[in-house]
Amino acid sequence: MTVRYDVLGIGNAIVDVLARTEDDFLVRHGMRKGAMMLIDEARATTIYEAMGPAVEISGGSAANTIVGCASFGGRAAFVGKVKDDGLGHVFAHDIRAAGVAFDTPPGSAGPSTGRCYVLVTADGERTMNTYLGAAQDLHPRDIDTDAVAGAAITYLEGYLWDPKHAKEAFLKAAAAAHAAKRLVALTLSDAFCVDRWRDEFLALVRDGTVDLLFANEAELRSLYQTADFDTALAALRREAPLAVVTRSEKGCIVATRDRVLAVEAAPIERVVDTTGAGDLFAAGFLIGIARGADHERAARLGALAAAEVIQHLGARPQASLKTLAQEHGLAG
Amino acid sequence: MTVRYDVLGIGNAIVDVLARTEDDFLVRHGMRKGAMMLIDEARATTIYEAMGPAVEISGGSAANTIVGCASFGGRAAFVGKVKDDGLGHVFAHDIRAAGVAFDTPPGSAGPSTGRCYVLVTADGERTMNTYLGAAQDLHPRDIDTDAVAGAAITYLEGYLWDPKHAKEAFLKAAAAAHAAKRLVALTLSDAFCVDRWRDEFLALVRDGTVDLLFANEAELRSLYQTADFDTALAALRREAPLAVVTRSEKGCIVATRDRVLAVEAAPIERVVDTTGAGDLFAAGFLIGIARGADHERAARLGALAAAEVIQHLGARPQASLKTLAQEHGLAG
Repeated sequence: MTVRYDVLGIGNAIVDVLARTEDDFLVRHGMRKGAMMLIDEARATTIYEAMGPAVEISGGSAANTIVGCASFGGRAAFVGKVKDDGLGHVFAHDIRAAGVAFDTPPGSAGPSTGRCYVLVTADGERTMNTYLGAAQDLHPRDIDTDAVAGAAITYLEGYLWDPKHAKEAFLKAAAAAHAAKRLVALTLSDAFCVDRWRDEFLALVRDGTVDLLFANEAELRSLYQTADFDTALAALRREAPLAVVTRSEKGCIVATRDRVLAVEAAPIERVVDTTGAGDLFAAGFLIGIARGADHERAARLGALAAAEVIQHLGARPQASLKTLAQEHGLAG
Repeated sequence: MTVRYDVLGIGNAIVDVLARTEDDFLVRHGMRKGAMMLIDEARATTIYEAMGPAVEISGGSAANTIVGCASFGGRAAFVGKVKDDGLGHVFAHDIRAAGVAFDTPPGSAGPSTGRCYVLVTADGERTMNTYLGAAQDLHPRDIDTDAVAGAAITYLEGYLWDPKHAKEAFLKAAAAAHAAKRLVALTLSDAFCVDRWRDEFLALVRDGTVDLLFANEAELRSLYQTADFDTALAALRREAPLAVVTRSEKGCIVATRDRVLAVEAAPIERVVDTTGAGDLFAAGFLIGIARGADHERAARLGALAAAEVIQHLGARPQASLKTLAQEHGLAG
């Protein structure tokens, strides 16, 4: 089968509602700075009423990654569930306008389109409160196995373990990808998400469901329940064929059984909002791998995309990543 | 009656949908760069489908001004019509979260909340396409004459001449303000808006309905149908007791019968998006006048607010204008 897509992503379809806030606000509302908490509709209302004026921007972790892949000039597709409502239209418009194939039918009943209240503090750190809404209704029937079989890499977010049926959709997609001899990649998403689903994530890595794992330091330590990074990294290398650990301003580590490769972060002028840093790193790395780049070149593409996205508000690129890659001699 | 509000604004309640675009796109879709065009729902759909990924931010010309007044620490109120829908909730949340009193009941039937597709080109210029939606249903019964009588200044946007009943609401408010010996201010909004309603706007100035007029150069030339700025300014000074003409990077002119005062623009690093420059200039000038500042100090407050808003995406301030005014020795 010919490759139709470089990367197909499956994730929660979410619109971000971004507002600047003070550290005090986080404390007062019992939020863990830098983490993503799942909230119900009642708490979503409470938080929204208390927070300041906001900006609405399409988001969702894997969706951001896939938009990044398209911005690099890649052929990209996304699978995720919105409702047929105002924010659902916004999500669908934005991802299609970015050049991504998005064919998941919207829900006509049930909860409204999911949203994430992203509270950005003066240090650029973001604290997230997600009401999954319609994203909870992603179902195995939403997976088009032909599309998955036609994608060089199928990319999945760990957050998919939270909605009820999404993990079945995830496993259906992974099976279809492997049947077509394609790669399956997973991001661990968030340290608290790992805490909720540790055993299942470990099983996915151990049983070969996942070929390529993305994690940041906190997620990796949470996965192996250790405070020591080197211990966690050693455990990871025994189990995962290929893993990338992102380390914010310290760059990233590409780990395989026989090698640990460190790649620096790309230089930036000023951190405005770290939302999307990990998502966009994954975009660059995935598009690199999908197109046959070596690990170092792929990691440099990831670093470049992460640097772009943290220098402005919002988790999707504002500049063409393809042009940026060309300017940095990383195209091709 | 004691003053409850420094400024009460009446205008179209609009959510801005901002996207970056190329000049080509404007040409292809028959848009006049820098202007605001009114569009119907069908054209709104066509434009939205053709335009790139966007960001949703509450807008509306007078609403932006009133949020600016609140950011200066002023007591501010807004009157405008949204529908009880997703974007309507966004508009109401954002203006209240900015500290503005907003009590206009939302529509339960009829068109959805108004929106403006703002296309920002590389030069920072914005071209606007407005679907008025629910804003068309602003009605004289939405005017609380007690609130108007309790506002030092009632501020109206010229765009209100487009919806059917809004001008009656406008005139009801102006009468209530004058009955309470308060000031009435008007912005001409847009040169093409002036073109649509020239005679009525001239009548408002001539019959004393308006005490303070805001215009930019193009609007002023359109009002007096002359290409010559000085001719237009001379005509204005004969008719308006107090007028401010904004001139982008050349600053502004405060004109009265016996004096023409030029005030420089505030220095900026880089123009990102000119959306809201005029709206925020008005915020600073109005709050200055409401608090008894002289014309020069009021104009400097306006210039400061305009400079803040053009250095980021979106038409509402991201920094505290009160703090900014203090830093520039303009507080008090």
